[in-house]
Amino acid sequence: MNTIENIIKLALFEDSGLGDITTECILSESFSGKGIIVAKESFILSGIEVAKKVFKFIDLNCECFSSFSDGDHIKEGEIFFKVQGDLLALLKGERVALNFLQRLSGIATLTRSYVNELEYPDVRLTDTRKTTPGLRSLEKEAVRAGGAHNHRMSLYDGILIKDNHIVVAGSIKNAINAVKNRTTHLMKVEVEVTTLDQVKQAIEAEAEVIMLDNMNYKQMTQAVKYINGRAVVEASGNVSLTSLNKIAATGVDVISCGALTHQARSVDISMRINTV
Amino acid sequence: MNTIENIIKLALFEDSGLGDITTECILSESFSGKGIIVAKESFILSGIEVAKKVFKFIDLNCECFSSFSDGDHIKEGEIFFKVQGDLLALLKGERVALNFLQRLSGIATLTRSYVNELEYPDVRLTDTRKTTPGLRSLEKEAVRAGGAHNHRMSLYDGILIKDNHIVVAGSIKNAINAVKNRTTHLMKVEVEVTTLDQVKQAIEAEAEVIMLDNMNYKQMTQAVKYINGRAVVEASGNVSLTSLNKIAATGVDVISCGALTHQARSVDISMRINTV
Amino acid sequence: MNTIENIIKLALFEDSGLGDITTECILSESFSGKGIIVAKESFILSGIEVAKKVFKFIDLNCECFSSFSDGDHIKEGEIFFKVQGDLLALLKGERVALNFLQRLSGIATLTRSYVNELEYPDVRLTDTRKTTPGLRSLEKEAVRAGGAHNHRMSLYDGILIKDNHIVVAGSIKNAINAVKNRTTHLMKVEVEVTTLDQVKQAIEAEAEVIMLDNMNYKQMTQAVKYINGRAVVEASGNVSLTSLNKIAATGVDVISCGALTHQARSVDISMRINTV
Amino acid sequence: MNTIENIIKLALFEDSGLGDITTECILSESFSGKGIIVAKESFILSGIEVAKKVFKFIDLNCECFSSFSDGDHIKEGEIFFKVQGDLLALLKGERVALNFLQRLSGIATLTRSYVNELEYPDVRLTDTRKTTPGLRSLEKEAVRAGGAHNHRMSLYDGILIKDNHIVVAGSIKNAINAVKNRTTHLMKVEVEVTTLDQVKQAIEAEAEVIMLDNMNYKQMTQAVKYINGRAVVEASGNVSLTSLNKIAATGVDVISCGALTHQARSVDISMRINTV
Amino acid sequence: MNTIENIIKLALFEDSGLGDITTECILSESFSGKGIIVAKESFILSGIEVAKKVFKFIDLNCECFSSFSDGDHIKEGEIFFKVQGDLLALLKGERVALNFLQRLSGIATLTRSYVNELEYPDVRLTDTRKTTPGLRSLEKEAVRAGGAHNHRMSLYDGILIKDNHIVVAGSIKNAINAVKNRTTHLMKVEVEVTTLDQVKQAIEAEAEVIMLDNMNYKQMTQAVKYINGRAVVEASGNVSLTSLNKIAATGVDVISCGALTHQARSVDISMRINTV
Amino acid sequence: MNTIENIIKLALFEDSGLGDITTECILSESFSGKGIIVAKESFILSGIEVAKKVFKFIDLNCECFSSFSDGDHIKEGEIFFKVQGDLLALLKGERVALNFLQRLSGIATLTRSYVNELEYPDVRLTDTRKTTPGLRSLEKEAVRAGGAHNHRMSLYDGILIKDNHIVVAGSIKNAINAVKNRTTHLMKVEVEVTTLDQVKQAIEAEAEVIMLDNMNYKQMTQAVKYINGRAVVEASGNVSLTSLNKIAATGVDVISCGALTHQARSVDISMRINTV
Repeated sequence: MNTIENIIKLALFEDSGLGDITTECILSESFSGKGIIVAKESFILSGIEVAKKVFKFIDLNCECFSSFSDGDHIKEGEIFFKVQGDLLALLKGERVALNFLQRLSGIATLTRSYVNELEYPDVRLTDTRKTTPGLRSLEKEAVRAGGAHNHRMSLYDGILIKDNHIVVAGSIKNAINAVKNRTTHLMKVEVEVTTLDQVKQAIEAEAEVIMLDNMNYKQMTQAVKYINGRAVVEASGNVSLTSLNKIAATGVDVISCGALTHQARSVDISMRINTV
Repeated sequence: MNTIENIIKLALFEDSGLGDITTECILSESFSGKGIIVAKESFILSGIEVAKKVFKFIDLNCECFSSFSDGDHIKEGEIFFKVQGDLLALLKGERVALNFLQRLSGIATLTRSYVNELEYPDVRLTDTRKTTPGLRSLEKEAVRAGGAHNHRMSLYDGILIKDNHIVVAGSIKNAINAVKNRTTHLMKVEVEVTTLDQVKQAIEAEAEVIMLDNMNYKQMTQAVKYINGRAVVEASGNVSLTSLNKIAATGVDVISCGALTHQARSVDISMRINTV
Repeated sequence: MNTIENIIKLALFEDSGLGDITTECILSESFSGKGIIVAKESFILSGIEVAKKVFKFIDLNCECFSSFSDGDHIKEGEIFFKVQGDLLALLKGERVALNFLQRLSGIATLTRSYVNELEYPDVRLTDTRKTTPGLRSLEKEAVRAGGAHNHRMSLYDGILIKDNHIVVAGSIKNAINAVKNRTTHLMKVEVEVTTLDQVKQAIEAEAEVIMLDNMNYKQMTQAVKYINGRAVVEASGNVSLTSLNKIAATGVDVISCGALTHQARSVDISMRINTV
Repeated sequence: MNTIENIIKLALFEDSGLGDITTECILSESFSGKGIIVAKESFILSGIEVAKKVFKFIDLNCECFSSFSDGDHIKEGEIFFKVQGDLLALLKGERVALNFLQRLSGIATLTRSYVNELEYPDVRLTDTRKTTPGLRSLEKEAVRAGGAHNHRMSLYDGILIKDNHIVVAGSIKNAINAVKNRTTHLMKVEVEVTTLDQVKQAIEAEAEVIMLDNMNYKQMTQAVKYINGRAVVEASGNVSLTSLNKIAATGVDVISCGALTHQARSVDISMRINTV
Repeated sequence: MNTIENIIKLALFEDSGLGDITTECILSESFSGKGIIVAKESFILSGIEVAKKVFKFIDLNCECFSSFSDGDHIKEGEIFFKVQGDLLALLKGERVALNFLQRLSGIATLTRSYVNELEYPDVRLTDTRKTTPGLRSLEKEAVRAGGAHNHRMSLYDGILIKDNHIVVAGSIKNAINAVKNRTTHLMKVEVEVTTLDQVKQAIEAEAEVIMLDNMNYKQMTQAVKYINGRAVVEASGNVSLTSLNKIAATGVDVISCGALTHQARSVDISMRINTV
Repeated sequence: MNTIENIIKLALFEDSGLGDITTECILSESFSGKGIIVAKESFILSGIEVAKKVFKFIDLNCECFSSFSDGDHIKEGEIFFKVQGDLLALLKGERVALNFLQRLSGIATLTRSYVNELEYPDVRLTDTRKTTPGLRSLEKEAVRAGGAHNHRMSLYDGILIKDNHIVVAGSIKNAINAVKNRTTHLMKVEVEVTTLDQVKQAIEAEAEVIMLDNMNYKQMTQAVKYINGRAVVEASGNVSLTSLNKIAATGVDVISCGALTHQARSVDISMRINTV
């Protein structure tokens, strides 16, 4: 039921679940092989553990080795992953392991560029729920490998009251009270607001985190000033490498940025396999 | 066991499998809602069916509607998807449906730019197996929506003899013979080659498709000339918008291009939900 | 993947997954039946939705009806649930539905006696993780039906730093810092302490919730006084109907009580089925 | 598909399936730990194998040890279970293992008190199907650990003709004939009866086991006398520690008692974990 | 978890789980179709319900119809099954439905020839556990459609003490006692014996069913005479159309025959599909 | 998700998924055992790997051994499989392993008789999709063990245009074009035809394989002559030991024969188990 195991299973199944017909036609006996994965450009690494799991999943006897960890900087030409084992297993795992690594490292690399850009060390940069279906927890790990933080993982592990909730509850106050009464005493209550008036209502209703959604810099500055430490302030919407520091300058505590996951491109890596 | 249903299940599970705690705290009764998805930039659509399945999966009584099909051009500002149903279901499906649509449409859009660029109508442009883990068949649909063709879906539904197979078999001839004897009479045999000498061996051994891997334009031209219609010729490696027509000009029949899937970025779309 | 559906499936499977041999030997044609569930003692109801799901799971065409909701007081002799449908389905669902209802209502009933006993309306009474394996979320619903609140559902949706964490981290301060850095900004950090000295460390490290574990009344009073509103205070350990108000009198905000779930006995109910 | 493995999986999933966030924030490296489970009151043990399986399920390398077996008497203060392994695994398994042990030992303990009370060694005391959903086979093992016997496990492995079956079949004779014709020659046929007249019909139709449902002592005595060894006689309904010997005195062969499982309370045990 | 659903799922998956590529290439819109299944030889029908389930499983909106039931005699040329629905669904279900029907009807037809041959109406002819993996319950239904009875379905729903059990237990008496003490009071105890001496031990130990394994006619006659109604007598081994009545003539009660399932050949049927 | 593992699981589940009640009543401690499987008639072996997997699946510590491989000729009386391990595991695996071996070897044996009969070494004899539900890939392996070839495994890995496809597409030409445009460049296109006129249309539309369905010898000879090497020619329908060489004599390249799988009978084998 673990989601990482599930996505590995699914990825292996879609690639070779019914067999690798070419290899099966040719390999009448068992061969040993060695594989190495090489960086064809420079990037920040993420996915090293899932790559190991891919090969282990196919054949428990595979030996995987890497002297790098997620978050490390990999240079062009560097061999950053080795695997030794049954040739059939290496050929089955090759494409799937690469597909995970290239996407996750792409996210870590893009995230690192945001983190490096940010000049305000006390501001927390987070991801969003705009992740590839099925890869949520892996992509959130990639964001941490890149040096940023995570926002909630799902609709289950964090409270965020949005416009529809407010409409249904009748008011921000009603919504916050309903949530506080029904949830555990271990959850903070966040409210999404779009106007300064809503900020005031949220503070009055004792919201613990306030998300300023798509506000301009001036509005954000005003909101931060009004809140004055009574709640954690999060900025959301239109966050880019260009706008990042301007948003941070408004005094918000948290900036959440969907681009970290949905604007990332795969890094260029390849695998070479040899029989031994 | 269907992979599309599996990835939808996984995506919904990781987002709200254990519940949507905010909404559950607030909604004590059932509400009806309407949702619309809007394009915030111009793009080629893909994923319309999977978006419908997401909402149907949560609640069979949702009504989904779109006047567009995969492959259609969507303009900025266009409302291209509507859904009506239980508010709780809409809130649960929102992020997952958007995450599918933004990624798949991103692939269709990038693919369309390649297709439009290609000036040789008889050359078949295909994808590769460099797809996001778990989304293989959806991303291959997105490639078709973009106007290109598919290469094999997996290691199971197409034969491709690579260097390791040749090493194990002893020669290209041995490898092709082994495969022809063991597979069905409905499969064509493709061999990946890197030199003109290997091209000759492949032709001699009656390969039905020959993949020229990372050859330069001159080599490709020579190979095509030598093969002279005796096998389908596929070019692979370093295919970009820039190199595309130059490769096509060498006379190859098929160009396979990993960038279609792994260099795509998500398109910008959003959903608005209202109670009714 | 939903846990409630899983426990229903498991319960049905263990009871009739391979068939109901007696009924199958006798019923050569299809019969309609009506069933009613009767209270043979007075109790607080919980499980009405899961009972409906049991019958619906066996046969979508069953019609279930109840004029009562979870949390309602049911009197001895009252018919509180009716189901109409295929006789075979009723016979299969009977025992499983009763087994859920009798246990969950037992918990709601015991919880209500605690809630009625508690004389401090501002003190929040919660359950613990001492629940029957597989029935966690249902038993937590039963606690709410009884009028109390829930503590965290699992190790995933709430942070609680215990002695082992403190040992590994080196100090309470280290543990709290590590957690605050790594978790989202939506989670409160709770620390379990056993001495007044630990209370001081927790406050210094800005713990947001402090659990006083197995302290006596005097210690609890001192802790509450020291904390003085700087953190939510939870009392835990040896909570019984006798000790409840004495603990509340110390000024704590929350009392967590394992007995609500693990000392409950099933209530006495039975089902009568007739062919129609 | 094994039900015990399924309930362990479900129990672990609901407790830590998505992770143990506190521990994961703090443990950056791997630690070894030792755990002991201590009895905080005296009881009859059941669940020792399932507790081992819980830890083994999380981590195959855990070492579990107990010098006790199910059915043993555990004294207050006794350490009856030890486990050594990865600290993360111990913290994940702790609550789940305890939750199984406390409930199953509760059933074994209550059952033992019934067995000790029963003064008729030839009378077989059995459980019923009134068990906790999902824990049927474990709770039936606990009943055997307590010294009693099992009635059928499910609707599949034993035949019991009840009032509805008789109504549908037209008569006791018809029902018994239908069953005997359709089932294998390895199953005995039991019929539930409420009157002496039905006893006579059951004997005439060659029932092999007759259940006297909710009869008073006088009726049971008459029934036993009439049956006179021609069928096994089972008494059912309102069996308590008080009524047990009175029922046995009527001469019945079997007494089935739902209270063994549904009136049991958890025993008091706790686990202490140390890093090593 | 139901085994019939599982084998249908598996059969559909192996035939078209990843799609029907030919049809998907051609059908760009939805078509309606009608299919009929025709007998190309005369046989006894079995599998009509599973055939319906196959089509329903693919598409809930299919309409299946048959005026025949399992056990009916189908004449050559007869149309015994009709289905109407989406053409894609008909093409997917066709081969799977036929594969079930041809095998199950083959078993029913062979069984009927044994049943017709048997001249002793009081002797019960049963199958064994020698069935096709995964089709156990369907093949046992086919045996009943043919007019014979079932032996136990699995190792779980009937007791049969074999030579290994006797060796381990020390003696037939020990084995029977161990079983009677541990199993429920609803199971009969069967013992497999090969000599007259073992028959005597079994009777002494109060075996309820005795299986004479591979005895010759004379031994069987002696055994039946000795047992003299004190246990049900079953003959097993080398049962054929030729030996059937000779075995029955020895006076045994039950004859179990593996050939019913493992010597059956598929009947000849075919499906015609038309668009409408 | 692997289909072979699934059918093994299903077969084990249906036979002993809920336990082996006889053995569990008797074995209070663990015993070691040895088992041998003996041929009671002469046959061609298939299923040796699946038999090993059955025992390994129950108990990873079982040791299986065979000096024979699939395709070998086994003589009456030969011991061709040995297994050593826990007695409980041997007793659970016995019937399931035998049921696989007896059926698969039956298919290999029948196939071998066809292969031996065929006097035209260049003609490829293949199976069809008329296999036992759930055993497709195993039965296709058995066909190869017998010396014949496989036709497509499923509707997914080979293209075959049938009458319904032609009707829907409008013509053979339309159907072939649609398929060629939509499928990958690695698949050959096969068309099923029943008349010489259709053969001509198929050749004109550049079909790569043509199936002559139920044609008589004269028609087949004419078709082969007309096609004259422009496509692979397959004969289908009414293939038997008698007709085999007459069909081959017409000059076709491939003969597909359903009888290989659906007319096979189980071979006679048995297992002896001893405690050690």
